[in-house]
Formats: sequence, structure tokens, C-alpha cells
Amino acid sequence: MTAPQPTTALAQLALALPAAQLLTGPRADAYLRDQSDSTPAGTPLAVVFPASTEQVAAVVRVAAAHRIPIVPQGARTGLAGGANAIEAGIVVNLTKMNTIVTVDTVDQTATVQAGVRTYALARAAAAVGLFYPPDPGSWKGSTLGGNVATNAGGMRCVKYGVTGNFVRRLTVVLADGSIVHTGQRTIKGVSGYDLTALLVGSEGTLGIITEITVGLLPAPADASGVSATFATTEAALAAAAVIVASNRRPSVLEYLDGPCIAAINDFDPESRLPADAAALLLIQSDQAGQAHADVEEYAQILKAGGASTVSVAHDPEHLDELMSARRLLQPALQAARGSSLNEDVTVPRSQLPALLAGLTEISRELAVPIGTGGHLGDGNLHPVIGFDAAVPAQVDAAHRAFARVIALAITLGGSASGEHGIGLLKKDHLDDELGPVLLDLQRRVKKAFDPDSILNPGKKL
Amino acid sequence: MTAPQPTTALAQLALALPAAQLLTGPRADAYLRDQSDSTPAGTPLAVVFPASTEQVAAVVRVAAAHRIPIVPQGARTGLAGGANAIEAGIVVNLTKMNTIVTVDTVDQTATVQAGVRTYALARAAAAVGLFYPPDPGSWKGSTLGGNVATNAGGMRCVKYGVTGNFVRRLTVVLADGSIVHTGQRTIKGVSGYDLTALLVGSEGTLGIITEITVGLLPAPADASGVSATFATTEAALAAAAVIVASNRRPSVLEYLDGPCIAAINDFDPESRLPADAAALLLIQSDQAGQAHADVEEYAQILKAGGASTVSVAHDPEHLDELMSARRLLQPALQAARGSSLNEDVTVPRSQLPALLAGLTEISRELAVPIGTGGHLGDGNLHPVIGFDAAVPAQVDAAHRAFARVIALAITLGGSASGEHGIGLLKKDHLDDELGPVLLDLQRRVKKAFDPDSILNPGKKL
Repeated sequence: MTAPQPTTALAQLALALPAAQLLTGPRADAYLRDQSDSTPAGTPLAVVFPASTEQVAAVVRVAAAHRIPIVPQGARTGLAGGANAIEAGIVVNLTKMNTIVTVDTVDQTATVQAGVRTYALARAAAAVGLFYPPDPGSWKGSTLGGNVATNAGGMRCVKYGVTGNFVRRLTVVLADGSIVHTGQRTIKGVSGYDLTALLVGSEGTLGIITEITVGLLPAPADASGVSATFATTEAALAAAAVIVASNRRPSVLEYLDGPCIAAINDFDPESRLPADAAALLLIQSDQAGQAHADVEEYAQILKAGGASTVSVAHDPEHLDELMSARRLLQPALQAARGSSLNEDVTVPRSQLPALLAGLTEISRELAVPIGTGGHLGDGNLHPVIGFDAAVPAQVDAAHRAFARVIALAITLGGSASGEHGIGLLKKDHLDDELGPVLLDLQRRVKKAFDPDSILNPGKKL
Repeated sequence: MTAPQPTTALAQLALALPAAQLLTGPRADAYLRDQSDSTPAGTPLAVVFPASTEQVAAVVRVAAAHRIPIVPQGARTGLAGGANAIEAGIVVNLTKMNTIVTVDTVDQTATVQAGVRTYALARAAAAVGLFYPPDPGSWKGSTLGGNVATNAGGMRCVKYGVTGNFVRRLTVVLADGSIVHTGQRTIKGVSGYDLTALLVGSEGTLGIITEITVGLLPAPADASGVSATFATTEAALAAAAVIVASNRRPSVLEYLDGPCIAAINDFDPESRLPADAAALLLIQSDQAGQAHADVEEYAQILKAGGASTVSVAHDPEHLDELMSARRLLQPALQAARGSSLNEDVTVPRSQLPALLAGLTEISRELAVPIGTGGHLGDGNLHPVIGFDAAVPAQVDAAHRAFARVIALAITLGGSASGEHGIGLLKKDHLDDELGPVLLDLQRRVKKAFDPDSILNPGKKL
């Protein structure tokens, strides 16, 4: 006689995983949310910490049998609620899967488990003379799995592209618990549809990514940078446009507006950014043998464009100083505002002046503070809308401003989200961007992967 | 009283299109096949030449109403039978849609209709100081739509990636005749699933691509190249590996074996490639301000690696000469062999020695001539298997060799196709590469797009 099988999902999970890898009740509370304000989170049945792809598959089989929602989760550095717990669902936290499997110098690839931190991969690559370019703001904390699931960006996208441009091959647990490997280790490969690209940015709604092979580049030999401040936004945008058109490709082209500069100075007084500037540009080149000359030319362009201050850095320490203030943008704005709604809009570069003018208008008309910084070079900006969560009128105004900013970006030929994802935060705005025919097609694709809708339901689409 | 509606598909097509855009009977014969040998083609109901997205949609609506198969077709430069006519189907030839809509120097994008030739786009970009890197071998004849549908590669992929890496936005006619726009004009964008990436390489089985927006780069200011011959394949591979590891990123890294060299010399006696070489490498750099120094270093590496001859080119004419022989590979091998089966395998670069050794063994064991050239830098080679179509034993041996080469590539961690597509030629080998679970998932994705299976049925999957 065989022992009776446990009939509850929780009992089956307890059989599938060691006790230390299964949290329930209040002990699970630390894993309910990402870093977005004002996105809801439910109380999960359990938070599990699988240590292998096989354990993930075992968990998914339990969930599938009981039709329980599953939320894949990395380091919860997301900004759109995509990894928030769902009521009575299972949170699959992948941070225990943090092994760098291989870094291959001949093939110039790395294979890592989904819970490896972005910065750890970048360092492992650098240790053997290679380079993993994607550098989302949260890269010291964020995981590769989360980066792939959101198609994370960063400061170097203007030259190197986004996370998805580096993803070659994925190990994925599908909705029925089966394990597949999509893509290939090579740059090229057209056997079958590109499911790898489809999974990139799918925010855990098509499958659970457990292992990732990325392509790497030779490490850049040089880096120089320059920062400049301007008395007007228009002058800063005009100078940036000349640099983009100059044929000396910047590896970083970042922007901060006046409110961002003030918030960073308040957050870290050592920053000492010029307090009276309306705009700051931060530009780098990493072209081998050319970075120094590139940045000297950028500096000339910035001066000719009317910059109030121009500061050039050719040595690593000085360059680090230039960049460190920019890296404080997200925590500084969150600290300054109490609560915030984080935009992530993109527009074609030619529409940046119209976008920034529109932001000023929205801020004034609705009387909400908006600080805007981000990736000028690829047209992806992060207007951050501040509000006091205890004042209903402020909450309401912030949400109206949020919707107007997205509508403006779409009107200008852009998108609601460049790199943070849709999650819960931007779901209501997807209709306007995609339209009913595309949305319906996307739902059919979702159904092809997840017929019972157990994978992060209610997110993304 | 309204006039009676025509009930036959052909009558409806005749209403949807001007007479000059509709070919039937023997007049359609010129449009039955691409450039692949030994792939079958059926007799179509009609070949249509729409002049707009709306006309494509009108044709698809007729096909959908009658459940008639549709074959999208560009310039028929494909090598896998993907654009071959299907019996009683409608061939939708897009070569009349050949307008370059915009080339935008601020956003660094171009929007073209699907029938625009690759080379025409490259020239239009170059005319305003911009650069469209993908350069498939057939680029003077091939269309952008075909390039996107197959995710075409070329010589510059080693540095710049494949066609898909440049595709931002697509206008697509879906299986029910509706028109959608996928993706966005910006580098970043994560609203919804990445259907653009899914359509890239889908070989006309998910939708008909009618308009394409690509990203462009600033034009490289410099270019230098070097070619070298070797007495052994092993020495050539070892030298190439040193160059890849050197951190001076080549923009081209091509390989030709002895049979390819002989075929090119026979095809064009002006080529005068060294007749006794076992292998030829062709390498370029286009790094601004560095190309000259890069190529001088490559030349040193090639000499140190035992090259028999080394020829450096720093001026455009000399560089063109170096490249022109390589561009003859495909026609030269087809001319040399009578009939041929064109492989398109990829392997991780570390497995290239094993792949080339295996090719020699397969050629010897099955007594079939195999000439191999291609893109050493990204692990994508084109073994071309020659045979006399009038000799059944040769046909049989060629097909057995074809299957063994693909099996070898998959065993080495590679893929059946890097850039040519699956079409009809490699369909039977997809099971081995993808396995039943992934294949089933791909079929469900196909069904989500094309529930009645009218879009290029029997191709790709």
C-alpha cells in the first residue's frame, strides 16, 4: 500500500522543497512587493525559494494542478509592480539560484542562473577582459532574470542596446511545468520562431526564466566623460542633438532637470551639482583609442551650445564622480517626494523638446511636482511625479498627471514604457498604445503559452 | 438592387487589384521559386503585385474568405524555398512596394516598404551619413521584407548583429486582413509582448510584412581590410581565434576553403585567388581612427600564425577587390556543382574546428563534394553540397550528407540555420533541434496568429 498523496497545494509544496525554501504567513511579508509605490499586492499562499530549474518545475506542477497563480520574482527592484504577490498565489523567488555557470572567453558568452545579480555578471565578465553592457540603475541589486523579464535598459543603451540585445538562450519552465531551452548560444539562429525574444520583457506571464546565456563583448579599453550644465532645457537638448549627429557615438548620454539636481543635492550634499542649472548633461565615450578625443569634441560642442559649466574627466576616479550623482536619481527623487509615480516613457529623439515642454505644462496645470531625468540619447526619460499619499487631492492629481504624460508620449510617436515594464502600474494605458487588434493578438499569444492563465495573471496585459 | 458579388476567389482578386497587378497561368511561371535547388513549388492560382498595404489586406481578405494559402514573396533570392509557390495558392509578390518612405537623420531611422532592395536602403542611408549594417550576400537583389522575414545575416553580423537587431517597427497584414503596427520607432519599448521580434524570421507564416522601420547608425569613417591564405584549415582557425580574442573588434571575419577558392577562380578568372591554399581569411575593421592600426595588428597575427600570403588594403578600391571575390561564393559554387544543397549551420565559435573536421569526414565517407565558406566570426558557415541531379545515387548521397551536417551542428551546440531560414529545405530537421515540447509551443503560437493556417502553410514549421 502506498502512502496517501497530500491533497492540498501547500502540503505538495512542502514535499517538493526543503522547509527552509518555503515561507508562509507573516514570514513571507518581506516578499510581497517591488519598489513601486501605489501598486497593490495580495497575500500569497506561500513564497518559495527554489534552488534549481527542476525545483521550479516541481512548484509549477503543483500550481498547475490546483490552478494557483504564480508570480516569478527576483530582487524586487522593479518599478511597475510586476513582481508583486497575488492574493492566494505562489511567489517563486529566484534569488537562491545565483550561480554563474560559465563565462566563456572563446565564444564570448556567459551562462548564469536567473538569480545572479547584474553587477556580479558584469564583474565576472570584466575579470576575463569581457563586457556585459546593460546597466540598469538598480544593477547592484537587480537580478539577470528580472532584467530579462522586463527587458531592462540602463545608461549604455544609447550605444549598446537593451538587455534583450544580449540574450541568446533561455532555460524556461512553462505553465505545465515542462522545461525548455529557447534560442542558441550563437549570434545567429533562425530555427523556429524567436521565442527567446518573445520571453524577453514578458514579465513572467509566459514562462519562468531560470537560466540565461548572454553574449559578451570585448571590454572597452578607454573611457572618458564630460558633464555640462545649462540655463535652459532647450539649449541642453540642442547641444545633445549636435553630439548625436556628430558621428562620434557616445556610450552614455544622460539628462537631469532642475528638480532632479535639487533632489540629488538634498539627498547627498557631497554631490554639489550646480544648484541654479535648469539642465545637466552627462556624456561618455568608450571608443578604443578615441574616447579622449571624442570627449574633447563633446566639450567643444557643449561650450559652443552655451553651457554654463563644462567638466571633463579622463581618469576613472574622476569619471566615477561624474556618474555617481546620476546614479542617485531614483532614491533621491523617492526621498524628496514622500510617494512617487515613476514614468518610463520613450519618444523618438526628434520629439524630446515637445515631450519636455509638455511635462512642464502638465506639472503647472495639475500643480504636481515632476522631476525628469534619464536616457536622452535613446529618448527614454523618467518623469517622477511626487505626491503625499495622505492627501487625496494630491494622489488624484498625481494619477491624472501620470496618465497625461503617457498619452503625450504616445501622441508623439513614443511608448508608455521603455525599460521598466508594464506590471500593474501601466496596464490601464496599454489599450491606447496597442489598440484592440494588437491587444487581442497578444492575448492569444499569452493563451498559447498559458492556457489556464496561472503565470503572473493580471500583470503586463 | 446591388450587383451580384463575384463568388470565385479569382474574380474577387480581379476586383481588388488593377489587371496589371494580377498574373495567372503561364505568365505566373517566373514567380514560382526562390534560388534553392531541390525544393518543390506548386502551381499557384495567381501571383499578385500589390502596391500598398491596403491592397495586401484586400488580397488577404479574399484568401481568408476562401481559405486559400498565401505565399508572401520578395525578390526570390532565398535559399530555402520559403517563398516558393504553393499549389492553388496566392503568391503575394511585394516587389512593387519599393518606396523608401523616410530616412530620418535626427532619429537615425529609416522607414521603407517591404519591396525596397537592401542595397537601395544602404545607399539611401549612406547618402545622409548614416549606415544600415546588415549585408546579406544577395543584398543587391534582396528586399528588406525578405530580409526581415528570414532574419537575414551577412558579413558584418560579427560586429553589428543580424537584420532583426535593426528592426524597430513593422506594418503587418494579419491572417484576417487586419493591418497592425508592431514595435516602436525608439531603441527601447516594452509595452506588450515583442511581436516585432517574433515576426522577424517567421518566413511569412505569421503575417505579411508590408512596411519596416529600421534603426541606423552613424556611418563608419574608416575601413581597412586584410586577406590571408593558409596551408591548413587548423592554422587559419587558430589565427582567427587570436584575432577574435584581441579586443580589436573586426567588422568582417570571413572564411573560404580550398574548394571555394577553386570555384571562385573558375567562375571569375580575374579573381586570381591563391590556388594552392587550404583556407583564406578575409578580415576588416571599421573602428573610427583605429581601422588602419587594427588591420596592421591583424596582419601581424596572421603572419605569426603561419599565413602563406597576407594582403593588406587601406584604400577603398583595394578593399573592394578583397571583398569582391568573397561575394562570388554563392554563384560560383552553384555554377561549379550543377545542383547544390546549401547549408547554413551555426556553431559556437569554440566548436568551429570540430565542425570543419566533421565536414571533411562527411565529404569523404559519402563521396560528395562539399565547399565551405562563410562567417567564421559568428560561427555561421555555408557548406555547399554539390551533386548531379540526373544521377540518383548522387542526389541520395547529397541529401544524406545534408542531414548529417545539420545533425553534427546540433550535436556541437549549434543550429540548422543561421540566416537563410528553414523554408522547405530544412523543415524535416527542425524536430531534432527543437524537440517536441518547443515544437508544440511554436505550433500554438502559429495558431494564435493564423488559426486557419493560410499564411505560407507547410513552411518553417
